[in-house]
Amino acid sequence: MSARIVCFGELLLRLAAPGRELLLQSPRLEVHVGGAEANVGVSLARFGHEVAMLGTVADNALGRAVLGELRRHGVDTRAVHLAAGRMGLYFLATGAGHRPSEVLYDRADSAFALAPADGYDWPALLRGAGWLHLSGVTPALGAATAAAAADAVRAAVAQGVQVSFDGNFRPKLWAAWDGDPASILRPLLDGAAIAFADHRDIDVVLGADDASADTHEQRFAIAARRAFDAFPRLQRIACTTRAQSSVDHHALGALMATRDGALHRVEPRELPGIVDRIGGGDAFAAGVLHGLASGWDDADSLRFGHAAGCLKHAVPGDFNLCDAEDVMALVRGERLDVKR
Amino acid sequence: MSARIVCFGELLLRLAAPGRELLLQSPRLEVHVGGAEANVGVSLARFGHEVAMLGTVADNALGRAVLGELRRHGVDTRAVHLAAGRMGLYFLATGAGHRPSEVLYDRADSAFALAPADGYDWPALLRGAGWLHLSGVTPALGAATAAAAADAVRAAVAQGVQVSFDGNFRPKLWAAWDGDPASILRPLLDGAAIAFADHRDIDVVLGADDASADTHEQRFAIAARRAFDAFPRLQRIACTTRAQSSVDHHALGALMATRDGALHRVEPRELPGIVDRIGGGDAFAAGVLHGLASGWDDADSLRFGHAAGCLKHAVPGDFNLCDAEDVMALVRGERLDVKR
Amino acid sequence: MSARIVCFGELLLRLAAPGRELLLQSPRLEVHVGGAEANVGVSLARFGHEVAMLGTVADNALGRAVLGELRRHGVDTRAVHLAAGRMGLYFLATGAGHRPSEVLYDRADSAFALAPADGYDWPALLRGAGWLHLSGVTPALGAATAAAAADAVRAAVAQGVQVSFDGNFRPKLWAAWDGDPASILRPLLDGAAIAFADHRDIDVVLGADDASADTHEQRFAIAARRAFDAFPRLQRIACTTRAQSSVDHHALGALMATRDGALHRVEPRELPGIVDRIGGGDAFAAGVLHGLASGWDDADSLRFGHAAGCLKHAVPGDFNLCDAEDVMALVRGERLDVKR
Amino acid sequence: MSARIVCFGELLLRLAAPGRELLLQSPRLEVHVGGAEANVGVSLARFGHEVAMLGTVADNALGRAVLGELRRHGVDTRAVHLAAGRMGLYFLATGAGHRPSEVLYDRADSAFALAPADGYDWPALLRGAGWLHLSGVTPALGAATAAAAADAVRAAVAQGVQVSFDGNFRPKLWAAWDGDPASILRPLLDGAAIAFADHRDIDVVLGADDASADTHEQRFAIAARRAFDAFPRLQRIACTTRAQSSVDHHALGALMATRDGALHRVEPRELPGIVDRIGGGDAFAAGVLHGLASGWDDADSLRFGHAAGCLKHAVPGDFNLCDAEDVMALVRGERLDVKR
Amino acid sequence: MSARIVCFGELLLRLAAPGRELLLQSPRLEVHVGGAEANVGVSLARFGHEVAMLGTVADNALGRAVLGELRRHGVDTRAVHLAAGRMGLYFLATGAGHRPSEVLYDRADSAFALAPADGYDWPALLRGAGWLHLSGVTPALGAATAAAAADAVRAAVAQGVQVSFDGNFRPKLWAAWDGDPASILRPLLDGAAIAFADHRDIDVVLGADDASADTHEQRFAIAARRAFDAFPRLQRIACTTRAQSSVDHHALGALMATRDGALHRVEPRELPGIVDRIGGGDAFAAGVLHGLASGWDDADSLRFGHAAGCLKHAVPGDFNLCDAEDVMALVRGERLDVKR
Amino acid sequence: MSARIVCFGELLLRLAAPGRELLLQSPRLEVHVGGAEANVGVSLARFGHEVAMLGTVADNALGRAVLGELRRHGVDTRAVHLAAGRMGLYFLATGAGHRPSEVLYDRADSAFALAPADGYDWPALLRGAGWLHLSGVTPALGAATAAAAADAVRAAVAQGVQVSFDGNFRPKLWAAWDGDPASILRPLLDGAAIAFADHRDIDVVLGADDASADTHEQRFAIAARRAFDAFPRLQRIACTTRAQSSVDHHALGALMATRDGALHRVEPRELPGIVDRIGGGDAFAAGVLHGLASGWDDADSLRFGHAAGCLKHAVPGDFNLCDAEDVMALVRGERLDVKR
Repeated sequence: MSARIVCFGELLLRLAAPGRELLLQSPRLEVHVGGAEANVGVSLARFGHEVAMLGTVADNALGRAVLGELRRHGVDTRAVHLAAGRMGLYFLATGAGHRPSEVLYDRADSAFALAPADGYDWPALLRGAGWLHLSGVTPALGAATAAAAADAVRAAVAQGVQVSFDGNFRPKLWAAWDGDPASILRPLLDGAAIAFADHRDIDVVLGADDASADTHEQRFAIAARRAFDAFPRLQRIACTTRAQSSVDHHALGALMATRDGALHRVEPRELPGIVDRIGGGDAFAAGVLHGLASGWDDADSLRFGHAAGCLKHAVPGDFNLCDAEDVMALVRGERLDVKR
Repeated sequence: MSARIVCFGELLLRLAAPGRELLLQSPRLEVHVGGAEANVGVSLARFGHEVAMLGTVADNALGRAVLGELRRHGVDTRAVHLAAGRMGLYFLATGAGHRPSEVLYDRADSAFALAPADGYDWPALLRGAGWLHLSGVTPALGAATAAAAADAVRAAVAQGVQVSFDGNFRPKLWAAWDGDPASILRPLLDGAAIAFADHRDIDVVLGADDASADTHEQRFAIAARRAFDAFPRLQRIACTTRAQSSVDHHALGALMATRDGALHRVEPRELPGIVDRIGGGDAFAAGVLHGLASGWDDADSLRFGHAAGCLKHAVPGDFNLCDAEDVMALVRGERLDVKR
Repeated sequence: MSARIVCFGELLLRLAAPGRELLLQSPRLEVHVGGAEANVGVSLARFGHEVAMLGTVADNALGRAVLGELRRHGVDTRAVHLAAGRMGLYFLATGAGHRPSEVLYDRADSAFALAPADGYDWPALLRGAGWLHLSGVTPALGAATAAAAADAVRAAVAQGVQVSFDGNFRPKLWAAWDGDPASILRPLLDGAAIAFADHRDIDVVLGADDASADTHEQRFAIAARRAFDAFPRLQRIACTTRAQSSVDHHALGALMATRDGALHRVEPRELPGIVDRIGGGDAFAAGVLHGLASGWDDADSLRFGHAAGCLKHAVPGDFNLCDAEDVMALVRGERLDVKR
Repeated sequence: MSARIVCFGELLLRLAAPGRELLLQSPRLEVHVGGAEANVGVSLARFGHEVAMLGTVADNALGRAVLGELRRHGVDTRAVHLAAGRMGLYFLATGAGHRPSEVLYDRADSAFALAPADGYDWPALLRGAGWLHLSGVTPALGAATAAAAADAVRAAVAQGVQVSFDGNFRPKLWAAWDGDPASILRPLLDGAAIAFADHRDIDVVLGADDASADTHEQRFAIAARRAFDAFPRLQRIACTTRAQSSVDHHALGALMATRDGALHRVEPRELPGIVDRIGGGDAFAAGVLHGLASGWDDADSLRFGHAAGCLKHAVPGDFNLCDAEDVMALVRGERLDVKR
Repeated sequence: MSARIVCFGELLLRLAAPGRELLLQSPRLEVHVGGAEANVGVSLARFGHEVAMLGTVADNALGRAVLGELRRHGVDTRAVHLAAGRMGLYFLATGAGHRPSEVLYDRADSAFALAPADGYDWPALLRGAGWLHLSGVTPALGAATAAAAADAVRAAVAQGVQVSFDGNFRPKLWAAWDGDPASILRPLLDGAAIAFADHRDIDVVLGADDASADTHEQRFAIAARRAFDAFPRLQRIACTTRAQSSVDHHALGALMATRDGALHRVEPRELPGIVDRIGGGDAFAAGVLHGLASGWDDADSLRFGHAAGCLKHAVPGDFNLCDAEDVMALVRGERLDVKR
Repeated sequence: MSARIVCFGELLLRLAAPGRELLLQSPRLEVHVGGAEANVGVSLARFGHEVAMLGTVADNALGRAVLGELRRHGVDTRAVHLAAGRMGLYFLATGAGHRPSEVLYDRADSAFALAPADGYDWPALLRGAGWLHLSGVTPALGAATAAAAADAVRAAVAQGVQVSFDGNFRPKLWAAWDGDPASILRPLLDGAAIAFADHRDIDVVLGADDASADTHEQRFAIAARRAFDAFPRLQRIACTTRAQSSVDHHALGALMATRDGALHRVEPRELPGIVDRIGGGDAFAAGVLHGLASGWDDADSLRFGHAAGCLKHAVPGDFNLCDAEDVMALVRGERLDVKR
């Protein structure tokens, strides 16, 4: 079972220092394509779904190259607009040991951020889709994208397209234009069938909660309860849990709460020798959506999402390039020796 | 004989496709630092002059790396401001054969372009300088930089600092903000002791001339005459002449007109197997300034500048990294075999 | 005006020594995707046509990567079969000066070569197509592909799809399985509306001619006349002419004969500093097809094809990645300086 | 004490994705030379032995490059045949974390696999040798190599050359031509003085055993007993033990059983931060053979082999490039800090 | 609070095999600039101090490139002499797992080692400096540098410049010219206000001690006591402690003894996934000096030095390129996730 | 017909800036192995001769890597001594256009230069050799190598081994130790059967000649006559002629004079797009020696040598990696298109 899934969001070029070098320590940059929603889209396309990207890129060699990269991984890019302007960029120096990775965003005033909300014909763009996936990064970019995201969700609800919303709360982006995340994110969560979010994302919209909680899991459960109460369309909230003993070694777990009160949990797995942590959350979201879109039960969907998220940490770049069989092998605990 | 020279202008990061690849044909970029005025400054520093850069860069890892690169080549960067904002970038695909090189600018709203004109304390910045070099790119970036350039030239004239102005007319930059090049460039030329400019640059300021001329040299001579008439401080105008039989093979000559009516000429030299054409004009300007700042006569200064410009075509990156002895060897026509 | 164009042929991985190194001189290989028909398809897609690839690739990471690369450049790969087996490879050492480039084929028994002819459902594959492009490489690979090529042409003629056939005669491939090129190629030429071929290709099918001719052009004209006589569907024959003063410096011209007796000619253009000569003929064919599919007249189509072929020599890899505007700039003789 | 050692087997080119990338994620491949028997040969040559390679490579630039690489590491390649055909290749994507490495073989119909068994003059090839090393990969490639391996062992036994046989059981290779491993491998084990094998390799030849055993070590001891009973020439059986907590972190131990009933054991050593796991078993075998050929006792030989195997995991490529002193330093437990 | 700090020592070029390759395993070398004292200087410059390098480099392209690299990182190189001769080099193969890194020095007879001691005008060179930093490598290079180091310390003491001395005992260098470390190092320690040294360094000068001590810390405390007794100017002795479970995984602690009898200790921190261990001790020294030069107390200075040393292990090259804020983040135990 | 040829000389590591960069413009170096005599030896080995290298390398990872590289190309290195000391290095920045390539030697006090002359057992080293090749670089390195070269030639003459001597006059090397080239080179020329030399090399030994000559060819003929008169064993003198219109474009001819008064000439061939000019003369010498050792006549040997020299300019690195068939294809003037 598979569904046409559309992802709306900004496409970014990642310009990264090679290996574990600092930015411009040597005069080379390695280029990847990313963006929270594109990461989800590429992963779902590799899992076998029909995926289309929605949005706007610069009508220049960079924008066209980005679309080419999405097509390479099986994502339909025909609905992406090309517009005058610039591509959003981010520069990355991947850390190691106790030196954190650093991201330097250069995405202000991108063609996507400046694209007028009324340029998107949502009823047409969503036609035939089973799911719309978007994230909290898009409304954080400015008034135009905030309006576009709201329009998209409204149209999706109207057309019966299920909405998947990933919180991805980025205070710096909101601060840059004095946007009010609570009021802007609320209708997005309100339209969502599934939210990838933890208690912080929920608190942004519903306000901080005064319930006492000792553990991350308890905080998550309480926040989920509040969210289900506030947003009657919402069926599931899921998040990863992450503990970092060093930049290269994390332990990743996963949680999912459902409207019926169930709390599914995947115990943390040690992730030594991390290759690339960027996009781990998007890979998780794609994995969960794969399960749901495939009609699996919640626990299996969460397990698959968790394994997908774990595998992403071993893949260079923003995209999780593993296919569904790779993920299932990890879910099943198959042996790790060379596959010949 | 050497003089402290200050250069005011934008510093740019060049992100280039490797070899003769198209942009993002493979996922790597090679990084160089450039900018018309910095190119002149680095070359002059390598010729042995005391050179300081003036301007503003982004207060982030990119801006600091750019300053480090200037320091590496001997330019004093202590007076450059660090400010919030972004670095100007340009993407480059170097052409070949009959496929032209392509530059994709991504420099709008850079920290330099947005730096307020009153942030520069010109009397202090110019103290002790023999020369101020700037170009027509800076005022083309917007009202703030146009004002800053005017302030700089005014202060220089007041302090007896000689002004070197390189036309570098870029219509697209002016069009982007509806700036009026004629009125903005006029006071800059008016303050200049030497202008690197051809008849097109002069026509921008003085209006098109109706004198008939068959050759580039005649047009240059006429324009020079008009400029000397209009700008009493102006002593010399110099430019290169360029004929391109392919992207990799040009013929480069040079002309200099002086207020006394002399016209110096360096016959075109064939430049086969061009490595990197960017910055060729800046290398020429630096070479001429080196001669003048060293007290050479005009013909020798022009010959040195021309040879420097030729050599730049054999050096990767924006900077001419040849030293004065390298240039003199070409002026003297020394043999080309391996130097052991 | 644009037409859906389908290309049938083998997809190959090119594994090339870096720069001008010999094969495995250093332990690195640079990878490109190629194949005579795919080269034409990618170029046409970049010119704005709807292009689909037909054929078979290995159902492994290499085959999937090859399809991804075609999609990246805008070619529809959904109709390509995935089958057990291996990908065809070729190793390349690019020459220089008087050292010729060397190609080492490792394509025997590829999934494409072994794919059974009856696995292709031609009526379905050709549905909606305006053109079918294929080349003499495909039938040369073995009995299965020879049969498939014949089936494809037969179906195209039956469905009113115009056939474009590129001779690409490769004696070594035919010798490897004792295939008879004359009898196998005849029906392909017989179905073609346009053939990219010179007198040698025609002689292979029709036998050597005893007419005396002094120049390549005369031989081409005579061969074209014979072909038009033998194949009533054939409307045009076109080829490039190539003179090589060194491995890096060729002169490329072009000829087209039409059934009505016209002979169009583009005078040779010098190509100094060649970057990559592989795929030059395919780029020419794509350019001519672009003109014809766009409804241009023969002379304009030939000029465009010739310019496209010239530009390909300045692009690394098998594909001509220039777009139609780049080609038109060369046709119009625009200046070669950096495009900013 | 040192002995001339000859190794018979296929030489392969490894074409690997850089770093931890997936295959063709970026368009580059890094090339190494490998092959189970060549790996042993190179290691022994670096330990100071006189080593010659036997076998067949393609008579082309790839085959000659492979021989050059062996010579570089001190292996005599004069007896290797050059024959028409192709080189065996394998493509590798090195995994990380929980993403296993993947090998994609493209070795079918190689010049080695197709070389007729009667093309090898074994009495001449084995003249003066103290040891013949071969592995279970060679007979698995097809009837011709199976016959050649049998001939080689028969001649070795006749000439008093000691045979070292490494099981290396690869079910996929046998399945590809319906070869019967039991009957083909039996005479090879029957001729061997030492076998690198675990219980699975023994079971392939002698059939599964119904003895109950809880641990890998018990299973190994039982299988060794059965092998010594079945093959009177066999003196020693050795294997590594491997536990994998992640793709980059294994624990490696070693076992050796001798005909006299002794069981030598090296306790597992943790191998964090594995660089390249391919060839670890071959490095172990070379280390044990080094000890035996040097006249060391079994326990010391096993310890040396184990340390060699451990070190290989820190060396890129298929070959263990450490020399004997490097291995001894690990056996002695010397400090790990920078050697200056 | 900041002080002008001058560093006297040899500048070296590091030529390193890429990644974890052995030396010349592939035909490429990666270049870094290093040298114990330069490493300290660069780090201090990045912490915001005014730093000048003193010494001599070869008057050729390599020497000038090395100076350029120091300038890039903010170190003043104007006082470095250029002299005929060669640059000191070292070749590096970075190890992994249980394979140690190997350094191959090629520094004999460098321009620095041969520079006559009387070529340095110490009173002028030290003018305005708060600190002079030098190490035991310099006097170990030969009689000329030993004399220069003694002169430098003598002049510093005379001028009231505080001396920082890093033991860095290298027996091989002393052995190469039969220098007597005890007599040569004694006056250097005698002039020092702080010594980076452990009990081995102290024993070299004061002779082995017969006091019994069980732990490294006890040995350090005893040695410090002896040093304070012997050298009345000495106020502090500091060192790191290092335990190595593999080449890529160390545990690093730090100790500081002060004349008043205090012993400060930073408990070992695990350093998994080490990127580059070279320069770790120099980064520690620079960190401690930063604290002292900033007027911090001893414990805070030690903590900062320790954190700086830890971070260096995550930075490629000899220099610690982290700035003070990066180090403070580790001291404060901030979270390790991507900094956006 | 083939002969065992021994080459005596220094082995060098070339450390080169990538592409057309200046030295250390970016922090990478590409490594090749070279040395005038080794270049000849590798070329002769690839032409099918049995070649052995004689000399001394450093007993470290660099020296062993250099020997491995010679073995890779088929040269027997068993007779090369390993000795304490350093490897000779040279740094290279390859020029372009009008910017000459620059070589920076760092070869002083190498293990080869310091190896005592009496360490070579010439009668044993020359046993079975048909030719001994050496060059004027070796005696220029110092008294020890001058003595060794003299010994080698004396022993060769005594044993009937033909001596090939390449002048390779390097004034800087002689000046470094005040060696007298005339007296030291004389016995080498006296022992030679063939000299690769032009009039400058002859003048060094015989003193300047006062005969008037207008052309290089006349000067060569006169010098050859003088040499044949002075050295009765000498049979042939050969040299290339080179005109350089740019660093990348030379014209290369060749001359050979024989004792019987014949003067053979190969007209200059244009060499556009030069890849690597280093080793061109050595490739020429190897080609001539190949002809002579194969029993060809002088004119054919010279033509082959000239073609080999031309091809070298298209091969990266010091070695001419073309085989005899490649060279013959150029002699025969075969077409330059891709060889498939």
